[in-house]
Amino acid sequence: MNNKPKVAIVMGSDSDFPIVENCLNILKDFKVETEVLVCSAHRTPDKAAQFAKEAESNGFGVIIAAAGKAAHLPGVLAAYTILPVIGIPIKSSTMDGLDSLLSIVQMPSGVPVATVAINGAENAALLAIQILSAGYPELKAKMRDYKEQLARKVEEKNAALQQKLKQG
Amino acid sequence: MNNKPKVAIVMGSDSDFPIVENCLNILKDFKVETEVLVCSAHRTPDKAAQFAKEAESNGFGVIIAAAGKAAHLPGVLAAYTILPVIGIPIKSSTMDGLDSLLSIVQMPSGVPVATVAINGAENAALLAIQILSAGYPELKAKMRDYKEQLARKVEEKNAALQQKLKQG
Amino acid sequence: MNNKPKVAIVMGSDSDFPIVENCLNILKDFKVETEVLVCSAHRTPDKAAQFAKEAESNGFGVIIAAAGKAAHLPGVLAAYTILPVIGIPIKSSTMDGLDSLLSIVQMPSGVPVATVAINGAENAALLAIQILSAGYPELKAKMRDYKEQLARKVEEKNAALQQKLKQG
Amino acid sequence: MNNKPKVAIVMGSDSDFPIVENCLNILKDFKVETEVLVCSAHRTPDKAAQFAKEAESNGFGVIIAAAGKAAHLPGVLAAYTILPVIGIPIKSSTMDGLDSLLSIVQMPSGVPVATVAINGAENAALLAIQILSAGYPELKAKMRDYKEQLARKVEEKNAALQQKLKQG
Amino acid sequence: MNNKPKVAIVMGSDSDFPIVENCLNILKDFKVETEVLVCSAHRTPDKAAQFAKEAESNGFGVIIAAAGKAAHLPGVLAAYTILPVIGIPIKSSTMDGLDSLLSIVQMPSGVPVATVAINGAENAALLAIQILSAGYPELKAKMRDYKEQLARKVEEKNAALQQKLKQG
Amino acid sequence: MNNKPKVAIVMGSDSDFPIVENCLNILKDFKVETEVLVCSAHRTPDKAAQFAKEAESNGFGVIIAAAGKAAHLPGVLAAYTILPVIGIPIKSSTMDGLDSLLSIVQMPSGVPVATVAINGAENAALLAIQILSAGYPELKAKMRDYKEQLARKVEEKNAALQQKLKQG
Amino acid sequence: MNNKPKVAIVMGSDSDFPIVENCLNILKDFKVETEVLVCSAHRTPDKAAQFAKEAESNGFGVIIAAAGKAAHLPGVLAAYTILPVIGIPIKSSTMDGLDSLLSIVQMPSGVPVATVAINGAENAALLAIQILSAGYPELKAKMRDYKEQLARKVEEKNAALQQKLKQG
Amino acid sequence: MNNKPKVAIVMGSDSDFPIVENCLNILKDFKVETEVLVCSAHRTPDKAAQFAKEAESNGFGVIIAAAGKAAHLPGVLAAYTILPVIGIPIKSSTMDGLDSLLSIVQMPSGVPVATVAINGAENAALLAIQILSAGYPELKAKMRDYKEQLARKVEEKNAALQQKLKQG
Repeated sequence: MNNKPKVAIVMGSDSDFPIVENCLNILKDFKVETEVLVCSAHRTPDKAAQFAKEAESNGFGVIIAAAGKAAHLPGVLAAYTILPVIGIPIKSSTMDGLDSLLSIVQMPSGVPVATVAINGAENAALLAIQILSAGYPELKAKMRDYKEQLARKVEEKNAALQQKLKQG
Repeated sequence: MNNKPKVAIVMGSDSDFPIVENCLNILKDFKVETEVLVCSAHRTPDKAAQFAKEAESNGFGVIIAAAGKAAHLPGVLAAYTILPVIGIPIKSSTMDGLDSLLSIVQMPSGVPVATVAINGAENAALLAIQILSAGYPELKAKMRDYKEQLARKVEEKNAALQQKLKQG
Repeated sequence: MNNKPKVAIVMGSDSDFPIVENCLNILKDFKVETEVLVCSAHRTPDKAAQFAKEAESNGFGVIIAAAGKAAHLPGVLAAYTILPVIGIPIKSSTMDGLDSLLSIVQMPSGVPVATVAINGAENAALLAIQILSAGYPELKAKMRDYKEQLARKVEEKNAALQQKLKQG
Repeated sequence: MNNKPKVAIVMGSDSDFPIVENCLNILKDFKVETEVLVCSAHRTPDKAAQFAKEAESNGFGVIIAAAGKAAHLPGVLAAYTILPVIGIPIKSSTMDGLDSLLSIVQMPSGVPVATVAINGAENAALLAIQILSAGYPELKAKMRDYKEQLARKVEEKNAALQQKLKQG
Repeated sequence: MNNKPKVAIVMGSDSDFPIVENCLNILKDFKVETEVLVCSAHRTPDKAAQFAKEAESNGFGVIIAAAGKAAHLPGVLAAYTILPVIGIPIKSSTMDGLDSLLSIVQMPSGVPVATVAINGAENAALLAIQILSAGYPELKAKMRDYKEQLARKVEEKNAALQQKLKQG
Repeated sequence: MNNKPKVAIVMGSDSDFPIVENCLNILKDFKVETEVLVCSAHRTPDKAAQFAKEAESNGFGVIIAAAGKAAHLPGVLAAYTILPVIGIPIKSSTMDGLDSLLSIVQMPSGVPVATVAINGAENAALLAIQILSAGYPELKAKMRDYKEQLARKVEEKNAALQQKLKQG
Repeated sequence: MNNKPKVAIVMGSDSDFPIVENCLNILKDFKVETEVLVCSAHRTPDKAAQFAKEAESNGFGVIIAAAGKAAHLPGVLAAYTILPVIGIPIKSSTMDGLDSLLSIVQMPSGVPVATVAINGAENAALLAIQILSAGYPELKAKMRDYKEQLARKVEEKNAALQQKLKQG
Repeated sequence: MNNKPKVAIVMGSDSDFPIVENCLNILKDFKVETEVLVCSAHRTPDKAAQFAKEAESNGFGVIIAAAGKAAHLPGVLAAYTILPVIGIPIKSSTMDGLDSLLSIVQMPSGVPVATVAINGAENAALLAIQILSAGYPELKAKMRDYKEQLARKVEEKNAALQQKLKQG
């Protein structure tokens, strides 16, 4: 299992961790090895650059980066690597996340960032797993299970609601 | 080379082709096999569902979907597959692309769509290649070349501007 | 009364029920038969498709669908039925409901969704009743009563305010 | 066929006619009788009120209203009738249609307007037909044909694109 | 003093009163006679129309109207009177007041509404007083006092802050 | 008639004149005396301040100010006068007029600006006339005529459309 | 050290002080002399104008101005001085700070305001220090320290997170 | 004069030059030495980093950076230097410049970017000159002249308009 590429989870500030934790938990559930890093595009730019440059040779297969406001981190990492970079726009105290979303998604031609929903940390993890699963049939199988489980939960919630409505 | 997964490029309307063509051209340059499809989440929903369900077994590794306005196509395809789905928000005649962007990127937990910039067809292609390149060293090599070429073009444009300013 | 078409109320997540309940209550007041369903365009897409395909023959006359964020549910149901579909954009934790509104209302030509206000569950119910009431004079009569009652409540609130201001 | 309710198409300004015409044409194709009216919520408010008050007894089953900017017309008509009112937000010279959309869709509880996409005149017609078709099996049949035709057109466009790409 | 025109303060819902009260208080301070009315453009449209039609002959000189969401009330009143109408956009539970603002301010040519800030009830009162004061020198004098008082309050707050900073 | 207060029309840049001209023409039609002034809140701030300070004693009854982008002019004039100030947000080359609208309408408590629609120069003129007309019965009469004419034009356009549709 | 230019911190209302205080504290840490002033572009316009006119001769090198809503203060001060003016858009109770941001940043050609993030008081201070530091090597040295400290804090937070995750 | 710090003008793409040229021309008029550079935060990130790191020692006093869409360039440069960085948001083909504005202005605490209006290249130049002019009385004098000239141009345009209106 150790040959499977790792997923890096980079966040611009440790205040983003409560959101990012959802990402980490899903990757753990899928038994994907992760490394978590607080690293800022603006406050520790050299470290961010170095991390991204070496990510591939350090055994990472995907980089997930979460950032709020001007939210340059995912784009800056993407500039330095050919690995797929997934961006999570974090909703901060103003602008309801629109600033983070536009700063992350509107990348210029040549350097993509795969952007998920505002605060969409779980989907970042799932996307990373979908990306990794190409060469790993066991990940594909788990993802299929996960999707079935998602569907089952909806069914259960529906059943619970029907029950509640009958008892009205 | 034929064992390499194919990339599907699905668009909701053939009027999106002028944007989507940029995506196709890059994939051709990287010698990634593609299939292009006009298929609507709203007008041919069964076909969209069927395509997505069978995409994996039909040899696709990534699905790229472009759509404008309510732009449900990428999310609808993602609902039926465990393959990574990349969404291109198309700018239509109103709302400057914001409607397409939000409709594509704001997916609920469990079903991610990797969203690129409004009309960002080239980046959708590059992201697909980054995703595929895990098992294909020759794609990684080409992507490195591509990034170097991008940098070189910037340098050339800079040189041309310096020339122009001197003569200015 | 049982020949009268039923109204389906579909929601993408049971967390939308507190909003959707207002819809249900009005339909009950008008003695319109309803079925409530938790069903996701992304997590249980086949069930959503099947439900919409069979809705007409199952005795439904209108489908109301509530969804937040990317909010594809109303449009996905509309793709599979010729029944009128009413969409309720749910305000979620980011973007103040604008994402849901645009994802629901900006449908492409050919597949309309009748969109009401963000969190406008009561109006979805009233619109469904207006639609159904074509063949049912008793619904028309009740709707007239309802409108008179609305006006009366405004008058009463005005009277109460005048009282309060006099006592000032 | 003359017993079938008519559809009113009201627009705030004759400058909206090029958009509204798409609505009229579809209703004609479905052989639904229409009346078209230029009538302003702000410039001829009494006439608008009177029209809406008498619409039901004048044989209308649905009212479609198109308006731009502050776009009060659909809501004003809805205030005076129990008929379903469909609102078409018209994109005007500023604000890209967002003003019209919000002014039409954000109606208060008690008085719904069924809102379609910005400039979505065709969908307004289709929604009106879906509403009317309850008691008219021939309208249902035509709507089914229409949806099949929509799908067929997508298939044809797809076929044409495949052809073009092969020759490409 | 009774010959001076009165100011009408109309609100679409009594839930707007906590905002509107600021308006009323300022008019009282200026000893301008007011009448307050709960009256809805959508729920009591005939009453709104009648009120506006008779406002001038009933001795009103200005109408202030507060409304949220689709916020048609100010525009509807303006349609029926030649008196100046001042609109207060009320921030409701979604869209942060942008919907109310656009619905009120974006009036078509021919029927203006003098729009103030979102929840700007005090400024609506002051604007009404500025409008009325043309023929009433004592209102002009009071307005001058008011402006001086505003300036004095800023000076006092500045003095208090300087004090606090010194002790800081 | 010369005793009647004049209306000042101030614009921040002469490039706004094509919009502002509509304002001027209506005031001329109503035989209201005007003075037009190019004067910038940022480039000629002292002149703007002085103009506003002296406007009342110089015989003005209302000030209309048009400005784009940061659009401080109406608010700056309002700071220096107790006359009612009407603001016209001018749509400039970016942000579709939203910047001008918010900069003009969102004035703080104490200093109102009566804001009209983006590029709504005609309504600024009509609002000025409504404000002036308190003491001038002939202005009231003309305004009534104007409103009737507005209604008549709508009727004529409606008639023309009916004609066109019949010949269709 | 007293020859070093001072920094003025002007705010439109003392309610902005909790945000502005962050600005003041940083300037104190850098031992830059400051003066704080409550002064309104709309309520005390003459004082604002006078302050800005005399700021340079009074020994100021930079003016920082914080304002919310229509937020004219920074632009008004900039109109009267050749000193660099830094604007802090304050988030108020509506529009999430977008109104303040656009009102401050969208200045017309000729009169710039250096705008920082919504509520970005700390960055306003740092920008002022960067501006002042041209002639003051000790400020440059402190700024270098500050940046290193910023980086160190990120490293510490990263270390703390790693610790926490290990103990997880 | 050669001791005076230079101003760097960096743009992410040579397609931004038509906007940026306005910046360059003003700096030339003020006889401030400039260097112009095409350099991308995403395509040539190392060069951008290196340029910013060495900018101070290379004799620059201010960096102006123009960028569109995700617009990371100004923030990335600011991360590597203690020089003041001025950001020009460039309006690109979607989102009307709002994406660029938010990406540039919403910088996190610790790393400011002095943001000017969308496409506000002239103001970027003027702000740079205001920043540089601290130690250079001749720049202050020129800036005073420039402001007087600005005022004079407004006066001339006003005079021309008065002339035109008289002849009108």
